Amino acid sequence: MAALFRGCRNFYKRSNKHVELSFVSCRSMASKTPVGFIGLGNMGTPMARNLLKHGYPVIATDVFPESCKELQDSGAQILDSPAEVADKADRIITMLPSSPNVIEVYKGPNGILKKVKKGTLLIDSSTIDPEVSKEMAVAAEKMGAVFMDAPVSGGVGAASLAKLTFMVGGVEEEYNAAQELLTCMGAKVVYCGQVGSGQAAKICNNMLLAIGMIGTAETMNLGIRLGLDPKLLAKILNMSSGRCWSSDTYNPVPGVMEGVPSANNYQGGFGTTLMAKDLGFAQNAATSTRTPVPLGSLAHQIYRAMCAGGYSNKDFSSVFQFLREEGVQ
Amino acid sequence: MAALFRGCRNFYKRSNKHVELSFVSCRSMASKTPVGFIGLGNMGTPMARNLLKHGYPVIATDVFPESCKELQDSGAQILDSPAEVADKADRIITMLPSSPNVIEVYKGPNGILKKVKKGTLLIDSSTIDPEVSKEMAVAAEKMGAVFMDAPVSGGVGAASLAKLTFMVGGVEEEYNAAQELLTCMGAKVVYCGQVGSGQAAKICNNMLLAIGMIGTAETMNLGIRLGLDPKLLAKILNMSSGRCWSSDTYNPVPGVMEGVPSANNYQGGFGTTLMAKDLGFAQNAATSTRTPVPLGSLAHQIYRAMCAGGYSNKDFSSVFQFLREEGVQ
Amino acid sequence: MAALFRGCRNFYKRSNKHVELSFVSCRSMASKTPVGFIGLGNMGTPMARNLLKHGYPVIATDVFPESCKELQDSGAQILDSPAEVADKADRIITMLPSSPNVIEVYKGPNGILKKVKKGTLLIDSSTIDPEVSKEMAVAAEKMGAVFMDAPVSGGVGAASLAKLTFMVGGVEEEYNAAQELLTCMGAKVVYCGQVGSGQAAKICNNMLLAIGMIGTAETMNLGIRLGLDPKLLAKILNMSSGRCWSSDTYNPVPGVMEGVPSANNYQGGFGTTLMAKDLGFAQNAATSTRTPVPLGSLAHQIYRAMCAGGYSNKDFSSVFQFLREEGVQ
Amino acid sequence: MAALFRGCRNFYKRSNKHVELSFVSCRSMASKTPVGFIGLGNMGTPMARNLLKHGYPVIATDVFPESCKELQDSGAQILDSPAEVADKADRIITMLPSSPNVIEVYKGPNGILKKVKKGTLLIDSSTIDPEVSKEMAVAAEKMGAVFMDAPVSGGVGAASLAKLTFMVGGVEEEYNAAQELLTCMGAKVVYCGQVGSGQAAKICNNMLLAIGMIGTAETMNLGIRLGLDPKLLAKILNMSSGRCWSSDTYNPVPGVMEGVPSANNYQGGFGTTLMAKDLGFAQNAATSTRTPVPLGSLAHQIYRAMCAGGYSNKDFSSVFQFLREEGVQ
Repeated sequence: MAALFRGCRNFYKRSNKHVELSFVSCRSMASKTPVGFIGLGNMGTPMARNLLKHGYPVIATDVFPESCKELQDSGAQILDSPAEVADKADRIITMLPSSPNVIEVYKGPNGILKKVKKGTLLIDSSTIDPEVSKEMAVAAEKMGAVFMDAPVSGGVGAASLAKLTFMVGGVEEEYNAAQELLTCMGAKVVYCGQVGSGQAAKICNNMLLAIGMIGTAETMNLGIRLGLDPKLLAKILNMSSGRCWSSDTYNPVPGVMEGVPSANNYQGGFGTTLMAKDLGFAQNAATSTRTPVPLGSLAHQIYRAMCAGGYSNKDFSSVFQFLREEGVQ
Repeated sequence: MAALFRGCRNFYKRSNKHVELSFVSCRSMASKTPVGFIGLGNMGTPMARNLLKHGYPVIATDVFPESCKELQDSGAQILDSPAEVADKADRIITMLPSSPNVIEVYKGPNGILKKVKKGTLLIDSSTIDPEVSKEMAVAAEKMGAVFMDAPVSGGVGAASLAKLTFMVGGVEEEYNAAQELLTCMGAKVVYCGQVGSGQAAKICNNMLLAIGMIGTAETMNLGIRLGLDPKLLAKILNMSSGRCWSSDTYNPVPGVMEGVPSANNYQGGFGTTLMAKDLGFAQNAATSTRTPVPLGSLAHQIYRAMCAGGYSNKDFSSVFQFLREEGVQ
Repeated sequence: MAALFRGCRNFYKRSNKHVELSFVSCRSMASKTPVGFIGLGNMGTPMARNLLKHGYPVIATDVFPESCKELQDSGAQILDSPAEVADKADRIITMLPSSPNVIEVYKGPNGILKKVKKGTLLIDSSTIDPEVSKEMAVAAEKMGAVFMDAPVSGGVGAASLAKLTFMVGGVEEEYNAAQELLTCMGAKVVYCGQVGSGQAAKICNNMLLAIGMIGTAETMNLGIRLGLDPKLLAKILNMSSGRCWSSDTYNPVPGVMEGVPSANNYQGGFGTTLMAKDLGFAQNAATSTRTPVPLGSLAHQIYRAMCAGGYSNKDFSSVFQFLREEGVQ
Repeated sequence: MAALFRGCRNFYKRSNKHVELSFVSCRSMASKTPVGFIGLGNMGTPMARNLLKHGYPVIATDVFPESCKELQDSGAQILDSPAEVADKADRIITMLPSSPNVIEVYKGPNGILKKVKKGTLLIDSSTIDPEVSKEMAVAAEKMGAVFMDAPVSGGVGAASLAKLTFMVGGVEEEYNAAQELLTCMGAKVVYCGQVGSGQAAKICNNMLLAIGMIGTAETMNLGIRLGLDPKLLAKILNMSSGRCWSSDTYNPVPGVMEGVPSANNYQGGFGTTLMAKDLGFAQNAATSTRTPVPLGSLAHQIYRAMCAGGYSNKDFSSVFQFLREEGVQ
């Protein structure tokens, strides 16, 4: 109860210019009140199921009826629009593919903010431009609600197994309330700072990930052409200063590791198009903060060229194939 | 004795077109016969001392008399030239700054090959162009000697503590004999394949290292400008897919880690000039094998520009400072 | 009269949902009615003077009183705000440093759109994000006015001598009316297409300019280090396929040409910061259209790194110095 | 006669340690003595024909009998090896595909240097590593002959029309003698400095050419995606500071110009593989002189990736297609 009480008190403190305390619908009097969930795609559906597994009633919606049907079969209540979800739930999670979807779901004619109740906690797990997250937070605050960004790392597999990592941005006082729900869906939840910080952390991680992946692909390719055995080279890198996640956990060279996309013709995993999108956010953030990111920028361009060259739907580790194809001329 | 016997037999097998078995001076009948050591710089001196500590008599030389004096005080016998060392020792280690030095020490007028005995094991731990390693191996073989390349990873500290990693290239039959000596000076010894493979592995590792370091510097800088706390960002990267040696072991941002060059104004460590040199080898290798290495190539150029901009003598993690200097305009 | 008539007719056609023809204040019944001018910086002041020279009464404003005073001395009438200028003139030119200034001058509390008259022609010669140009055009259309973007190429010298090039975007029917004014201030006026196209053309040109300049600097530096005489090398490039504007008109190597910034310690010209800004627009445009621009992107990063390294206020050809400084290590 | 005399005197001065003046076979007493020509490929054959057209007897050889037959039909005398050509001619031109061919033709068992006469002028028009040119010059000088490098710019068409540009490196005193022959085959002959300078100039030009071409392709692609008409954009660039040879003479966008490879599905022209090769020389030269060439280096990598991606045999302007393929995702 202490956490809840603190949540309410802080909410009051933060919002007292706008609302009367008597209007605050103090959410979560019982911790298992319904949770809204909007966006039932490949990631959203298993996330919502994990909430159901933890005993939370889920009230959900999505533009695709089949996705709704599927979650309904798992026990969720389905409503027609984000606005209706907002009318029934004072904690809502959104998981959407892109910034325009987020804007529509929050600020559209049937959007959350049309019917959001004062004090509602809105958690957006989409990966979007941090500037859009900040905009949503401002709009939510005007309605007396709280918006936090909480993008994830980890893919569909991690979503099913509740092993996602959440990077959370927003007012610190609400973090405990967010964490309560996010721990049902992920293994790690990290508080990153003010609103937008979750997106910033995600963008930074994925930029370094892309650099490490392309670097690993180049290095493995070079080593192989110099006559080194790929498994041996990976072993050497992984015990030396060249070690990185892409070399030791997700090696892009077929035959070096099992259970990764490179072992399966680069099917599944994290698509090249999605990586190009995230690198676009990193590039925008770098341009607006005037930060030189030469390798990040080149990584972005390489993934753009891969999209142009037919790699859109392959895992981002297929950069090994892109650089290697047809071998020595 | 089995290993030694195998060594001799293999040597015979490999060289029977050139030498009579009866001429083979079968080295190491007792394993603590003298070891030659040529090149007593910052790395060579502690390496030679570790051989002395393991009970090997060391016969050494260097162009700088003070360096010789220093090792003499530690118990080594000093001779005047590589040729004289080759006359006395049938196992010789060389640790030199660059390809021309290696060529001079092996093929020069007072070089090893002037007096090398048949069957001598020559181990070069310098980081040089793999093509030069191959040249030396051919020249050594003509004299009935065996050349292996065994460049190290790890710096002066690792050399003192015998914690270097050796990457070894050369005929597999001689690897055990090399390993016997190298384990006195390093914690890890890895056989990489035919001669030049040690250099190839080292070049590959350092290319990926440079990419990871610049990537980490860019990412940390971007995150900081987006408002993230540097320590927190490092923590997030290190538990996510952005993780790499440069982020978790050698972070380039002052204040994030202790005991690394970034905590000491980028003094010590691995200099920018040396990194630029190694990236030049990687570039040459990529060009001659027609391997695309876009990030490796850009990393090379960035370290070249840093050398031009006054960073020559700083640790290579100072790329963080290079990208950041003067901050937002 | 034909052109004017066509202008009015087209305006009617375009706007008949919003306005009554009777309300149209048909501008330019006499071609020398007053022209508004907002933004009296290094570029704006000589541009406004050229309008005065051609006999146009000028009604101007700027946030800096001294700039206003200076133009007043040249014969312009000075008003207090963009809104007041809009109240008096039905043709207005704006020349401002950045997107936020444009937004303020058009949509701010004392902005043009507060008092703009129906049928007014608004020409913005600022270099800004094409998206902002489109936004202004939509806002202007709502008020019954016409917005065109007309960024310039050529610097302060070209502005004084009326030798600028204008790249014009907007409805084709209004192009003649815009051209009448722009030819007083520039030597070339090019119609590029719908609104935002002028900015797009400018961004494209400057991206290719930056690539050509850095490429020329690299090439000249390489040639010099290979022993070629810089003047001879420039001559060879300029009669061969390496030829570009940066090699034949604005060579970055001191001593090769006279009358360019490289002959004057990179003073004057087009500053590195401004180039970095334009490359930021190019980058944003490339990201939002998902266009791979690897060299453009790297050029952007190099100018960012130069800003970080103390080159902010030097001409963009100082990239030669940035790459060369301290010479061979 | 003055030029010839000067040539002989200088030759004497240069070589007096090695030869007696009386042994000098003073070539070219009559200017139409036979000229040797080695390497009858796509470039060599039309070049040799142009010598024949100017009345020079040509003594030629090539490894492909058909090529020899073809030139024989045009009036040349065919011999069996470079050594035999050297035995008969005191002016020899070589035009070969790569460094190893040049080494073979000059220093091989049937190479020129086996039978070269003292005072012979050797002109190599191959594009090769400048270091190899220097090596050949040293070897030639040992035999009392003079080696000059004279690589060309311009393709097969220019070779047929005698419109090549020759960039010549070597001792200045021999330049006139070389020029006499080269002007029969080219429109421009430029003296660049000591031996290797011709290659250096060529490498520099081609590096800047590659940068300009990729930059033009990126810029045109970006402009098109921003809604600009390609012909209009090319026109704007060509009258502005973005202008370069690739935009105004060899535009990579189909439909913008006629008579260029982009108008013919990138057939003919200068192949991607050849550009990658030349950029490899530029890269080697930059690495060995420690010159930062970030864009040149990235251009190299892009052409490498294109070779890997199936563009090997297309003209190098096909980079437009490489970057564009499949359009916006």
